[in-house]
Amino acid sequence: MAIKEAVRPGGRSARVQEAVHHAVRELQITKSREELSVPQIANKAGVTPSTIYRRWGNLAELLADVSLERLRPDDEPPQTGSLAGDLQAWGEQYLDEMTSLPGQCMLSDIMASAERERRERCYRYSETIMACLRERAVKRGEATPSVEDLMDGVIAPMTYRLLYDLDTATPARLSRWIAQTLPSVDSPD
Amino acid sequence: MAIKEAVRPGGRSARVQEAVHHAVRELQITKSREELSVPQIANKAGVTPSTIYRRWGNLAELLADVSLERLRPDDEPPQTGSLAGDLQAWGEQYLDEMTSLPGQCMLSDIMASAERERRERCYRYSETIMACLRERAVKRGEATPSVEDLMDGVIAPMTYRLLYDLDTATPARLSRWIAQTLPSVDSPD
Repeated sequence: MAIKEAVRPGGRSARVQEAVHHAVRELQITKSREELSVPQIANKAGVTPSTIYRRWGNLAELLADVSLERLRPDDEPPQTGSLAGDLQAWGEQYLDEMTSLPGQCMLSDIMASAERERRERCYRYSETIMACLRERAVKRGEATPSVEDLMDGVIAPMTYRLLYDLDTATPARLSRWIAQTLPSVDSPD
Repeated sequence: MAIKEAVRPGGRSARVQEAVHHAVRELQITKSREELSVPQIANKAGVTPSTIYRRWGNLAELLADVSLERLRPDDEPPQTGSLAGDLQAWGEQYLDEMTSLPGQCMLSDIMASAERERRERCYRYSETIMACLRERAVKRGEATPSVEDLMDGVIAPMTYRLLYDLDTATPARLSRWIAQTLPSVDSPD
């Protein structure tokens, strides 16, 4: 299954988007969230502030858009030979990114967006990964839960703890969620 | 188990907080999120804008604080005679509130807050409810999962879907999460 999303439309509009996104990513390296402003980003990107306001509405929506862009995976999730292993490998990588300071900022930006559609894109992103890992497992002849059960059993507690109780979003718990969700793997307790 | 949190400290500071919270709740009845402003809230509450900025930092944090206040339950969760029933009754009520427009605004306000501590209070709130329902079940002699497993198995998918894929946060799915989390209840599939 192809993970990459459809190619974005080219042209002037795409170039403006790329310039503005690039400016945000550059500024985020040296500046804290509180120090960022629309005029500063516009200046760096070589566009007018009104271009940004027209397109994104406000700073929060722009930051959410940039964060979502980062969610687009470039690589296939790692292959380990079993669904449990694939889930653990991908999940540990994801936890690692999302418990980092940039990862936490990214989550906050997306959650702060008033656009419900942005959060749904996060859901679709995770769903695509789960469908990909499940499809591999089906091809190997493994017994697999549905994508929906993988979302509820693995993605939901992982995301819930990343958002609400960060210290408990750990690889050890991830193993436990995987074991409880996959019928064929022995539960650790 | 007592659900109510510790009584807040009284005095001038508490009265300012109550006046400002009250002003926000009043204004929220007639105004949309975009129409609210700190000077307007200050005016309604009879305090200066700088009082609000000093105490809450900005509008987003104030709105998050007001939303969290609403999370404090006044009543014991409904009693049905079984853990599955109690979870379903409480959960349906919670889904009902949280899929409503005010509930969705409340979730957004809390997620938009930069204070990690506010989200952790949401976690503690749900944990307290789960501990209360579990304790009732233990007293009745029911086999029960741990509070942690109730959080991962029921609260996590419920919250995850409320935040990321609202249309799938339904009572039917709630029954399924409960059945999958409670070992003594037959799974519907």
